[in-house]
Amino acid sequence: MTMTPPETSPVLRTTATPDDVAYVRDIVASTGFFSEAEIAVAVELIEDRVTRGDASDYRFVFADRNERAIGYACYGPIPCTIGSFDLYWIAVHDRERGRGLGRRLLREAERRIHGESGRQVYVETSSRDQYRSTRAFYEKNGYERVATFPDFYARGDDKVVYVKPLNASGLS
Amino acid sequence: MTMTPPETSPVLRTTATPDDVAYVRDIVASTGFFSEAEIAVAVELIEDRVTRGDASDYRFVFADRNERAIGYACYGPIPCTIGSFDLYWIAVHDRERGRGLGRRLLREAERRIHGESGRQVYVETSSRDQYRSTRAFYEKNGYERVATFPDFYARGDDKVVYVKPLNASGLS
Repeated sequence: MTMTPPETSPVLRTTATPDDVAYVRDIVASTGFFSEAEIAVAVELIEDRVTRGDASDYRFVFADRNERAIGYACYGPIPCTIGSFDLYWIAVHDRERGRGLGRRLLREAERRIHGESGRQVYVETSSRDQYRSTRAFYEKNGYERVATFPDFYARGDDKVVYVKPLNASGLS
Repeated sequence: MTMTPPETSPVLRTTATPDDVAYVRDIVASTGFFSEAEIAVAVELIEDRVTRGDASDYRFVFADRNERAIGYACYGPIPCTIGSFDLYWIAVHDRERGRGLGRRLLREAERRIHGESGRQVYVETSSRDQYRSTRAFYEKNGYERVATFPDFYARGDDKVVYVKPLNASGLS
């Protein structure tokens, strides 16, 4: 008789390693949300981080299970601004969804942005039905819809921009 | 007795050369509009173009007088969109302002974007008083204000986003 070992709780970390390039690709692809072009952009960001280290403008928070990333957030300061940050990406492996890991990654990214004197976090997503749960995720985590760009991604596919002002009381 | 030669009319071109890095820096610095960080970004874009050629996502239109750039526009397709372009930069050397050169560069950039199946052009600027003439320039050239991001650049310095839909009748 074999026993299934109890699942370990995901561990957060911020230092990127070369293995994370493959993990990021795997996570992003698993969601089924992203086009090949979008996956390529996600991979470019982690490659930049791995190659340039702290000189990269892309910061990461990873969630590991069994020493393998199963979700991550990528954010960074917006060039030529004082205190505005972009959340470029947040994704959780398809088999790990629905357990609050996205929220945990988001909270940790926000906490770190606040620690870098970030005043507000911007995030962009699509108006398509496919992204309804993504928009709901941001809305329930304190993000406010601040702009809509009609037909931005393609005809009938608007860009929606959210912002969350950061202050100590908004961080948990 | 010496004669001042008649001024030649600026000539537009699109191929970037290594000399353009210095010209771009000179043009952008001459305006007095941009911070050191912003000048550094302007230089990064032209360096990318010079280094990577057509593989660069940054396209340029230069206006030359006496074989030296005195103004330029920099634009490119927005990654992961179909038909949306950013106008990243448009600048005319301070001693050449007020002669319609900015409008000429803008028209040429729009014509080329339309030629690349661009549907719309986005441009971002600041809400500060210093940029009043910049905003007026876009507004009189058919750009519509589509969003305002309060305190984006810094406290009290909003980002204003304009868009212009491109169609054959809007190009001149």
